Amino acid sequence: MHIIDIIEKKKNGFALSKDEIEYFIKGIVTEDEEKKIPEYQTSALLMAIYFQSMTSEETAYLTNAMVQSGERVDLSEIEGIKVDKHSTGGVADTTTLILAPLVAACGAPVSKMSGRGLGHTGGTLDKLESIEGFNVIQTIDNFKKIVNKTKISVIGQSGNLAPADKKLYSLRDVTGTVNSIPLIASSIMSKKIAAGCDALVLDVKTGNGSFLGEISEAERLAHAMVNLGKAAGIETRAIISDMNQPLGKAIGNALEVKEAIDVLNGSKDSERLKAVALELGSLMLKLAKIADEKTAKAMLQKAIDDGSGIAKLKEMVIAQGGNPDVIDNPSLLPTAKNIIELKSDKSGYINSMDTKSLGRAAALLGAGREELTDIIDHAVGYVMECELGEHINAGDTLCAIHYNDNRNLEDAMSLIKNSIHIEKSKNKKSKKLIYKII
Amino acid sequence: MHIIDIIEKKKNGFALSKDEIEYFIKGIVTEDEEKKIPEYQTSALLMAIYFQSMTSEETAYLTNAMVQSGERVDLSEIEGIKVDKHSTGGVADTTTLILAPLVAACGAPVSKMSGRGLGHTGGTLDKLESIEGFNVIQTIDNFKKIVNKTKISVIGQSGNLAPADKKLYSLRDVTGTVNSIPLIASSIMSKKIAAGCDALVLDVKTGNGSFLGEISEAERLAHAMVNLGKAAGIETRAIISDMNQPLGKAIGNALEVKEAIDVLNGSKDSERLKAVALELGSLMLKLAKIADEKTAKAMLQKAIDDGSGIAKLKEMVIAQGGNPDVIDNPSLLPTAKNIIELKSDKSGYINSMDTKSLGRAAALLGAGREELTDIIDHAVGYVMECELGEHINAGDTLCAIHYNDNRNLEDAMSLIKNSIHIEKSKNKKSKKLIYKII
Repeated sequence: MHIIDIIEKKKNGFALSKDEIEYFIKGIVTEDEEKKIPEYQTSALLMAIYFQSMTSEETAYLTNAMVQSGERVDLSEIEGIKVDKHSTGGVADTTTLILAPLVAACGAPVSKMSGRGLGHTGGTLDKLESIEGFNVIQTIDNFKKIVNKTKISVIGQSGNLAPADKKLYSLRDVTGTVNSIPLIASSIMSKKIAAGCDALVLDVKTGNGSFLGEISEAERLAHAMVNLGKAAGIETRAIISDMNQPLGKAIGNALEVKEAIDVLNGSKDSERLKAVALELGSLMLKLAKIADEKTAKAMLQKAIDDGSGIAKLKEMVIAQGGNPDVIDNPSLLPTAKNIIELKSDKSGYINSMDTKSLGRAAALLGAGREELTDIIDHAVGYVMECELGEHINAGDTLCAIHYNDNRNLEDAMSLIKNSIHIEKSKNKKSKKLIYKII
Repeated sequence: MHIIDIIEKKKNGFALSKDEIEYFIKGIVTEDEEKKIPEYQTSALLMAIYFQSMTSEETAYLTNAMVQSGERVDLSEIEGIKVDKHSTGGVADTTTLILAPLVAACGAPVSKMSGRGLGHTGGTLDKLESIEGFNVIQTIDNFKKIVNKTKISVIGQSGNLAPADKKLYSLRDVTGTVNSIPLIASSIMSKKIAAGCDALVLDVKTGNGSFLGEISEAERLAHAMVNLGKAAGIETRAIISDMNQPLGKAIGNALEVKEAIDVLNGSKDSERLKAVALELGSLMLKLAKIADEKTAKAMLQKAIDDGSGIAKLKEMVIAQGGNPDVIDNPSLLPTAKNIIELKSDKSGYINSMDTKSLGRAAALLGAGREELTDIIDHAVGYVMECELGEHINAGDTLCAIHYNDNRNLEDAMSLIKNSIHIEKSKNKKSKKLIYKII
């Protein structure tokens, strides 16, 4: 078998065989110099896959080969049906911090491995690290113990899971081959399958703040992932949710933790964020066989009302070494030295937002990173005070910016202003939040 | 400017600007580690170009940037209009060895830089090196002196011509991005423009022994190259000729030199080879303003009939250090130890040949190379004794194989046999030799 023949085959639009895909993935991770596939051939194949796509069989072979390229976590010691959740990434998407404690409070074990923020998107690990002492690095043994005891733990991806995906992803990132449905689907699902969950709920984002703009593409991605999950024996559901504006109000790590605490305490200020969290949470409860969907939503709301959700978050913080006082008193979270309100120059309707740029503006303030090695400032970010469809007057506050140094402040402010499009007449675009449940 | 943005732009089907293409080419050849574009990004861009192609403007920018990446030979010291000739590569394509002496004998200076064989195709330099002592490596100064004195010299590409093309080509070869019209056109034309000719005749091959199978593709390539030549101030003509069977009878270096000598001596055995050589030669004489096309063909025939062509070949051999006796007595060429006749198993019509495999069979015998560093055996190869459309009986000779060791003999024999398709009824496919003159 030769990689050049595999590239030509895909380039010419043919489906690759299981053997060919396994040969490719083994060639990526091998240490044997003779068998190693050079990056220039890998990237050529990735670009050919971008153009010619992959059948569902090929995508399943690819996913499986990536799972096989590393370890697979065994979570069988955790009692109950372990349901994981994954979002394809967006701005102000703090659903995990809300739904994980609620689902756990309702009795389903939540053993979640999360990621870090990159580019315009945030990451749950960074948010949790805003809590003084909170340790996202745990051994798998400890992780299992915590979940068995408290029903909840959120940690960083541990061990050598799907190393082929890691190599492929870092190459895709610099070769323009990120937005390919089979490549995204296999990347996400290989990590989730290797992480050892029993069931999985996916939040596939659509809109200008997501990696896939079109709803039709998001739908194809969702179906691809649901099929991959099922093929691996993992019951998988997906929702397609809107990312044409930040989901929550807060963008920035500590600010988002505070918003999550507020929602768990019953705040009604973050309607959209809460709605998506409850939708995903109820699917999780359903897959965990705790309740049917309707009962599930009521159960989750009850966990807010009776305080069991926020208590569960506190339990997790304690179990992972964090300062539990932060949960009772969010003002103990890191705070920025300065707050400035950004005012609107114009009057009119907010007809659209460039959501990706809104995410980048937070990164400019120091809340996010361009490279995985960048250091972030947990305190900074901003809190939106407007949303799509709203009428606004010149002089009204668009958002409150929390910043520590003003190096990029002006750039961030003008980026935010330019990303919120205010027009005289209101457009009639639908403002749907959840497009589909799959 | 970032290469990732250039990749995305091409991937999404947009035309690249002159600046972007120059940035890319400079990034390929630079020694500056910070500005160097890694091969994995280059190959991703090449694959994107394969799928999205390039406009004629982009192709011209690319060609020009590759010319600028290295030296440009100045041949102005050679008197007269210097016409070069290039073939896109085929099997048993010995036209250069026939037309170069004939054109020179008719008074046009022939200053030709040639290449080596690779894969299933042969190369003029390898053929010339079958002649004892013949030196294809000459300084540019010597090259000019030889052409001014004898009107003819054929040497290897000298100096640092289009180094960007060299890098791109070696990457295309291993990443499945060879058969892209803008990439082929710019690769050929950048080298030809840098080599300093005044006018150029191209032989674009079509059929199963060529790099581009379809006539329509060959035509697009021919037009692309003619336009690039004109844009660079080089009058350029092209023919599209058939490569659905070997052009000459001999496949293998010394065997092809002998066939060329035979044609120059008036042999009528190699009709197709001679016809293509005279067609190309007459275009060269026309571009050199020696004659119009009709007169040109008669002049070339006269140079065969009066022996001035073969005398010119001898002059070149002497000027480049070769043994001139070889021209009078081709049995002085290297000969293989053994000759075996390959017989047909079947009776019927030769309806098609797999020409690429026929070229590979010669390489298997040692006449060609897989890698540019492979050492070849000038003596070996085979001489076809049949052609397309012919009726043949079981037991008739298909070809005479000249070989030195029998390591790959059986493989080569069965490859040749399987590549000559004999069927009961004669097919009516046209057996055109020259499809078009552009």
